[in-house]
Amino acid sequence: MSELFILVALVAGVISIGLAVYFAKLVMKEDPGNERMVEVSGYIEEGAKTFIKVQYKVLGIFVVGLALIIFFLLPVPPQLTSRYVAFFNWEQSLAYIIGSLASMLAGYIGMMVGVKANTRSAQACTKGIKPGFNVAFFGGVVMGLAVVGAALIGVSVVYWVFGSPQIVLGFSFGASSIALFMKAGGGIFTKTADVGADLVGKAEYNLPEDDPRNPATIADNVGDNVGDIAGMGSDLLDSYVASIVAAMILAFALFTGLEQATIAIFPLVLSGVGLIASVIGIYYIKSRKSDDPGKLLNGGTYITTVIFIGLAFLFVLWMALSVSDLNIAVRLWRNYFATILGLFSGIVIGFTSDYFTRDDRKPTLSIANSAKEGHAVVILSGFAYGLISVVPPAIGIIVAMVLSFMLDGIFGVAMAAVGLLSIVGTIVSNDAYGPIVDNARGIAEQGDLGEEVIRTADRLDSAGNTAKAITKGFAIGAANLTVLALLFSFAEEANVDFIDISLLNLNVLIGAFIGVVVPALFSALLILAVQRNAAKMVDEIRRQFETNPKILSGEEPADFHSTIAIATKGALHELIIPSIISVAIPIGVGALFGVAALGAFLAGAILSGFVFAVFMSNAGGSWDNAKKYVEDGNLGGKGTEIHKAVITGDTVGDPFKDTAGPSINTLLVVMSLTASIFMNVLLFINGGLGLIVLSP
Amino acid sequence: MSELFILVALVAGVISIGLAVYFAKLVMKEDPGNERMVEVSGYIEEGAKTFIKVQYKVLGIFVVGLALIIFFLLPVPPQLTSRYVAFFNWEQSLAYIIGSLASMLAGYIGMMVGVKANTRSAQACTKGIKPGFNVAFFGGVVMGLAVVGAALIGVSVVYWVFGSPQIVLGFSFGASSIALFMKAGGGIFTKTADVGADLVGKAEYNLPEDDPRNPATIADNVGDNVGDIAGMGSDLLDSYVASIVAAMILAFALFTGLEQATIAIFPLVLSGVGLIASVIGIYYIKSRKSDDPGKLLNGGTYITTVIFIGLAFLFVLWMALSVSDLNIAVRLWRNYFATILGLFSGIVIGFTSDYFTRDDRKPTLSIANSAKEGHAVVILSGFAYGLISVVPPAIGIIVAMVLSFMLDGIFGVAMAAVGLLSIVGTIVSNDAYGPIVDNARGIAEQGDLGEEVIRTADRLDSAGNTAKAITKGFAIGAANLTVLALLFSFAEEANVDFIDISLLNLNVLIGAFIGVVVPALFSALLILAVQRNAAKMVDEIRRQFETNPKILSGEEPADFHSTIAIATKGALHELIIPSIISVAIPIGVGALFGVAALGAFLAGAILSGFVFAVFMSNAGGSWDNAKKYVEDGNLGGKGTEIHKAVITGDTVGDPFKDTAGPSINTLLVVMSLTASIFMNVLLFINGGLGLIVLSP
Repeated sequence: MSELFILVALVAGVISIGLAVYFAKLVMKEDPGNERMVEVSGYIEEGAKTFIKVQYKVLGIFVVGLALIIFFLLPVPPQLTSRYVAFFNWEQSLAYIIGSLASMLAGYIGMMVGVKANTRSAQACTKGIKPGFNVAFFGGVVMGLAVVGAALIGVSVVYWVFGSPQIVLGFSFGASSIALFMKAGGGIFTKTADVGADLVGKAEYNLPEDDPRNPATIADNVGDNVGDIAGMGSDLLDSYVASIVAAMILAFALFTGLEQATIAIFPLVLSGVGLIASVIGIYYIKSRKSDDPGKLLNGGTYITTVIFIGLAFLFVLWMALSVSDLNIAVRLWRNYFATILGLFSGIVIGFTSDYFTRDDRKPTLSIANSAKEGHAVVILSGFAYGLISVVPPAIGIIVAMVLSFMLDGIFGVAMAAVGLLSIVGTIVSNDAYGPIVDNARGIAEQGDLGEEVIRTADRLDSAGNTAKAITKGFAIGAANLTVLALLFSFAEEANVDFIDISLLNLNVLIGAFIGVVVPALFSALLILAVQRNAAKMVDEIRRQFETNPKILSGEEPADFHSTIAIATKGALHELIIPSIISVAIPIGVGALFGVAALGAFLAGAILSGFVFAVFMSNAGGSWDNAKKYVEDGNLGGKGTEIHKAVITGDTVGDPFKDTAGPSINTLLVVMSLTASIFMNVLLFINGGLGLIVLSP
Repeated sequence: MSELFILVALVAGVISIGLAVYFAKLVMKEDPGNERMVEVSGYIEEGAKTFIKVQYKVLGIFVVGLALIIFFLLPVPPQLTSRYVAFFNWEQSLAYIIGSLASMLAGYIGMMVGVKANTRSAQACTKGIKPGFNVAFFGGVVMGLAVVGAALIGVSVVYWVFGSPQIVLGFSFGASSIALFMKAGGGIFTKTADVGADLVGKAEYNLPEDDPRNPATIADNVGDNVGDIAGMGSDLLDSYVASIVAAMILAFALFTGLEQATIAIFPLVLSGVGLIASVIGIYYIKSRKSDDPGKLLNGGTYITTVIFIGLAFLFVLWMALSVSDLNIAVRLWRNYFATILGLFSGIVIGFTSDYFTRDDRKPTLSIANSAKEGHAVVILSGFAYGLISVVPPAIGIIVAMVLSFMLDGIFGVAMAAVGLLSIVGTIVSNDAYGPIVDNARGIAEQGDLGEEVIRTADRLDSAGNTAKAITKGFAIGAANLTVLALLFSFAEEANVDFIDISLLNLNVLIGAFIGVVVPALFSALLILAVQRNAAKMVDEIRRQFETNPKILSGEEPADFHSTIAIATKGALHELIIPSIISVAIPIGVGALFGVAALGAFLAGAILSGFVFAVFMSNAGGSWDNAKKYVEDGNLGGKGTEIHKAVITGDTVGDPFKDTAGPSINTLLVVMSLTASIFMNVLLFINGGLGLIVLSP
């Protein structure tokens, strides 16, 4: 029976990929616009490919290395030890490679469609706002469906073949380790270009945004694709898969027999249902005639949510009827409600982000107004509101945890995480729409499509920003609940009776201490990385303007290749230390202070990571919109001292919201999975107690 | 026998107060300078008194209210229940009032001497750097000795009379609740004035620092006294007392009979020894002929440390010989070493702050250099270095915890906290020196003492900044270790066997989650408070300049009273919500989620509070010094775009380092003591499990 339900997920995954291909074709059918637009779009595509090529080469080596470590060093998971000999862990190793490839592939597909959709969306804007919207949205849908499809096919096949959630954990670890590079690397790339372009172009030479004379303009556009499409997509893929795996592991740890078999596939089934709901939501958005892109995107999210709740009800009914065991049926129903609770908490978090970053609400308005008192006060108020914005999402998560725990214990919490991510197809689609219209606006400007078309593209762009804020809220909430579920599944694996994660145990307290510090350190390193690279970018832009005055006068084109090369090289180089941190620190804490300390380390990292991620994303978002508010002509508008002050806020916020903040999600998932994967090795070190034992 | 050793602490305390009076007289004997200086100093004194009067009036009501709550609602501590009837807790209530009064008195004395010493130090600067240094230093010494004296007399008398560390806890809670108001209120006051003065005076009217025409100059000087002398003094008094109490409670919980009696007074004895060492250090500084104020202060710290180690050795030898029980003697020796470890960790933290904030070291230099790329990059790099600066102190604290735990378990950790604070006399003296010379510089400027005297005062001031950075490191490390010790003593009180502070218990995890969020929220509220009040200050300064042009031309004096009134009113008003947070949230978490969750709440708050406190203090310090570096003529010097960018950094850093960052220490201590004090009431709510029980 359970295989029938796995089939639901698998079929949904295959349909998803099929639809992704269909939407990609819809995009490709569109007119790419005039010669200049095709040229610019070609540069962006070339830049994106350059980055991906260099990035994937390095990632290839990394993946092979880690696959070998898993193969040779990691004990075979308990469920499989009966097979023949208990070494050469080829199953997890293989699953790890497949997970990595799935993530790389999804990122590649999404990005390649993105760079095709941008110029086509710009051209479609000449026909009106809905045609322009459609092309960009379809481009985003390809990414959304590719992510969900890759995840569902991967998880269901790996689980079907091996029947062990431990092997699916390998798949999840593969997807995560790639996501860390894609998100953090993409984040460094995009902000290196963006900050560099702004610092010289806007501030020193008074060039407008996306001016073709600015040598970093193309790199900036490339950055949107690698950071916001591929990066955010692989980030959500990674949380999505991890949430399913965490619930599966808990199902295996907590239940037995038929109950285990049924409950273990429940997260997969609901994710499949979520995909179907997302597809219906996508078709709803496609069919609407509305001219308000913001309403279309939000309407799609609502519709998807409602459909998910209804469809999931039917599926749970079907499952509950077919198990013919009242206890299991009740458990399914309880977890159905836990799933919906998770989804609601995601919406609460998303709308908190929306509130704190919207330019018609108090926080952002007050940041904009504080610009009257200068740069410093803009920073202070954005900083403070960003920190305050952590409170409502924290309450949302806590309420979801409490209620879902009441419904079905820690498994209920894990299912809340699955619920939060169930409509990830819609979320990623809406999110990937953002960078496409951002690019489209740039191409419209560079392709001389005229004021009106640029205004149309601007309206599309501004809806993209709101969608992005909501996605970030979702991503953070999802990562938080998922990593909590992973923490519980980690503890189940480590055998709770044996370890004591009590904070009064000094080892545990030290683990938590290190955990709390790591997200802060990680953010700092990424910000410094952006700053260092942006400085190189600034030098290069100045060099081009100074050595060749014809670039500024527009007679000769700027050299885009050198700026793209700086961003690419910098992003990869700067990733070395953060990626070592994400793998070495959990293993080090486990080895030195023991498995219990490692559990506390994860808990500490989750909680402090949540604070930093929400704070940075929302502070960055409100600084960005405070700037837009002034640029819309408020408080004196462009060119004033107030404008300069809000630009400072926006520039500070850029690496907050697009590099450090969102990368923390991936960091948390990678560290949790590292802990889970290496758990069995750590148990060999002083029986899991660690080298330093400070027992009372 | 143990009474003999309590006498050591009591006598040391009395000597301390005697010496404080002596040094105060030394200060008063000095020449207060010319008429204008006396006038300015008089304004500052008047402003400080206004603030203190309003502040103490509110505090009086608060203290009486809380004393009544303790009297009527709190059960009598277990050790005393045998007395007659187990209600009307007059002992803790009385101890609470005495603790509050001790803190208020120490703050008042220190501040009143400070406002007398400033003009006298300025005048002494005409005779050379050492005379100027001496007056300011003696002024600081009065604060240092008053703090230590009040603490030692209070703790030893309360303990002697009642024989219960629970009653001393009441004393500690009194000192802490006052400290929260003094530190946070003083911090808001001082930065309201400072930021307001800078935003209008420096940025809009190009007035120099401390210009008498700026209506906020006097308020700024008053702020140094209320925030940095009274505030920092009561902050350290509060940590100092709390560290002694935590160790005492643990001694009662862990040991019995003669061992208990001996070990319980050990922290008091060592604190007494620390005071003697501090006094010797003070006389060393006094006797030196050196002209380098920085070397004098640091030399004094080293000498005090060395003397403490030697003297403590002799006292431990004496105690060990007189107990005639080998086990107890060994325990004394082990804790002697734990104490020294704590002291060393304080020095590590202090010197990390020094490294990150010095303008001849990489972080601050790189922040200054980043100003070439504009305001935003200054903020980003200061933010990143501030976060990175959390790592070495965290390692220092962890190493001290591990080693002191190996020496004598959690009692060893508590003694490390006592050790860190043992030389608090010297630390507070050095720290209070800072605002006195800062004021002296302002008075020298306003009193027209000429370029050379101002330069001398400047040199004194710059040494004060380094001392301040080191003190802040000490204060943070002290608060961290102390609160950890309080956490353990809290758990001992709550009976560890009964509660399970395991992070896998969802109640506990939620407690930790709330704990991690609170310091962030608290910082944000204080920053917004400063910003809101600074805006009012800005309006008032602009109003004065606009309505009366004669102020700017120097023909008529500015109205200082209105600016002081704004800062005073704002500071008190803005304290309402943060002070409610510090008391209501711990009680709320305990009532809703239980005592175990409350323990985890404290742990979460300590760890995240540590990150925020260190980050904010060090980021603020390096922004400040990056600005000074540019103002010293580097990178183009004053008036350039680079200068403007580093001023932005400094203005952002002001409330970080002088309001939010240091207030977190006090917040942590207050929350821990609230938890300990209200513990017995919380046990009545569902037997300490809380209203919401999410057990696995």
